[in-house]
Amino acid sequence: MTTPALEPAYVAVDWGTSSFRLWLIGRDGSVIAERRSGDGMTTAARTGFAEVLNAHLAAVSAPADLPVLICGMAGAKQGWIEAGYLDTPAALADIPAAAVRIPGVAADIRILPGLAQRDAVTPDVMRGEETQLLGAANALGTGDHLVCMPGTHSKWVRLSGGRVTGFSTFMTGELFEAIARNTILSHAIAEAGAISGENAAFRAAVARMVETPALATSQLFSVRAGSLIAGLSPDDAKARLSGTLIGLEIAGALSLVADGTPVALVVSGGLGALYEAALAAAGLAPTLIDADTAVRNGLAAGAKALWSL
Amino acid sequence: MTTPALEPAYVAVDWGTSSFRLWLIGRDGSVIAERRSGDGMTTAARTGFAEVLNAHLAAVSAPADLPVLICGMAGAKQGWIEAGYLDTPAALADIPAAAVRIPGVAADIRILPGLAQRDAVTPDVMRGEETQLLGAANALGTGDHLVCMPGTHSKWVRLSGGRVTGFSTFMTGELFEAIARNTILSHAIAEAGAISGENAAFRAAVARMVETPALATSQLFSVRAGSLIAGLSPDDAKARLSGTLIGLEIAGALSLVADGTPVALVVSGGLGALYEAALAAAGLAPTLIDADTAVRNGLAAGAKALWSL
Repeated sequence: MTTPALEPAYVAVDWGTSSFRLWLIGRDGSVIAERRSGDGMTTAARTGFAEVLNAHLAAVSAPADLPVLICGMAGAKQGWIEAGYLDTPAALADIPAAAVRIPGVAADIRILPGLAQRDAVTPDVMRGEETQLLGAANALGTGDHLVCMPGTHSKWVRLSGGRVTGFSTFMTGELFEAIARNTILSHAIAEAGAISGENAAFRAAVARMVETPALATSQLFSVRAGSLIAGLSPDDAKARLSGTLIGLEIAGALSLVADGTPVALVVSGGLGALYEAALAAAGLAPTLIDADTAVRNGLAAGAKALWSL
Repeated sequence: MTTPALEPAYVAVDWGTSSFRLWLIGRDGSVIAERRSGDGMTTAARTGFAEVLNAHLAAVSAPADLPVLICGMAGAKQGWIEAGYLDTPAALADIPAAAVRIPGVAADIRILPGLAQRDAVTPDVMRGEETQLLGAANALGTGDHLVCMPGTHSKWVRLSGGRVTGFSTFMTGELFEAIARNTILSHAIAEAGAISGENAAFRAAVARMVETPALATSQLFSVRAGSLIAGLSPDDAKARLSGTLIGLEIAGALSLVADGTPVALVVSGGLGALYEAALAAAGLAPTLIDADTAVRNGLAAGAKALWSL
């Protein structure tokens, strides 16, 4: 017999490019069941979004009429249905009402919109991170914040009184992969292990980029030259590559806010320790917020606003 | 019947990673014959350096005992014979005497050394460009110069009174290829034509990097976002990618010299117009030096120093 608290209230889904996560949430807000898989947008675009969702709903025995709130790339043009964007400056509290409902199905399934910065010089978009921000809002409180959300495309968001005033995406993770695999630096780092935030070469590379960001692509070549003539080890070479790209990102983000703006780091998993070390090397001590918790809290805030759940 | 002036005096070879160029030079310094091919170091390492050279020498009917002076990657560790490096600071005039002779052959065949900057923070190497610098020295004259040598790995060299005091390699060309082919930006530029220095998006991207280099990897993402939400055309997207990387390189190089240091651009072919436009967008009017002529002049200076030719 199910207790009232564990009665399912809604389903929360974080549907990224290459990952799918679903939570069955109870009336008291607790997680009744969870699913994680690789059925991201790319896979689902081939196999069918409804089919992927239904299979996961069945696996957690979700009642058929349960409302479902989705964030992420499922709302992209190549996704299930285009959920559009809210334009910056945007109040985080306005995000839920802009969700787009999937037509032609009995259940109330909605996808939250992304954010767009429509600016000729610095156009930018996010999809998924806005829901993490909504979920982190309570932990951050009001006032001005610079929020770092690391990843393939790292987002740095400028928040003021619960509004996103602007944001910048840095291609850090994707550039790391493209450079590590497809340039001459691949030889220098071929035998390297995982990068540690404790690595002195990593911290030094970050600090140099905060000091002299203009030398970024020269510091990248020094990974090769250091390996050729200065005995740079594969581990240190890989750490210097990573530290250069992360340090450049930090320098860029800091250039857009007033000195002393509080910094928050919203991240999960191993990348968190690396960014924490990088931010420390740049002289910053961020507030730490778990990204998994933040996205679930953001979906909960959306469900509460849309369905009083 | 050959006139004395056209009697062959030596052979000059610029042997790069993927290209081979040979000139048969007369006693008066004129070019008697020229060969260009794709038999660069990569190819020759498989087919044999001596075989490649001999085939080209036979094709221009060079006498068997003619001295041959080579610069470039043929002197790398993976080349014909390792020709080592002169360490910076290095006088250009000291380069010829450090040439390494190929052993076990009757003819006097020598490979010029590269330059190495042995520095833990900014280790760097060049091989081939030092010979262009030697050939450009007369055109530049004495005093301080900042010399830009664009390419896959662009070199910016700080010269003072005929000495290389330091240099920096920027991975611009290689990064352009790696990013254009292997990241999400590939979609935005898939249908673009050749980049023109006249393109306003190119010039604007250069100017923004000179102003705010720390935002480089964010400006790269704006190529994608601009294509998604701001109607950025494929041509403008490709121009913004190129302008970002070239502008970042210019910003970095300028950060290492005193304001007002004269800039020279040593380049051949289409890349010259692009870099001239980029330097103009950064407010610079460089002295133009043809790279093909410079390398031949550098090899001539070497032949004169080594063999009084």
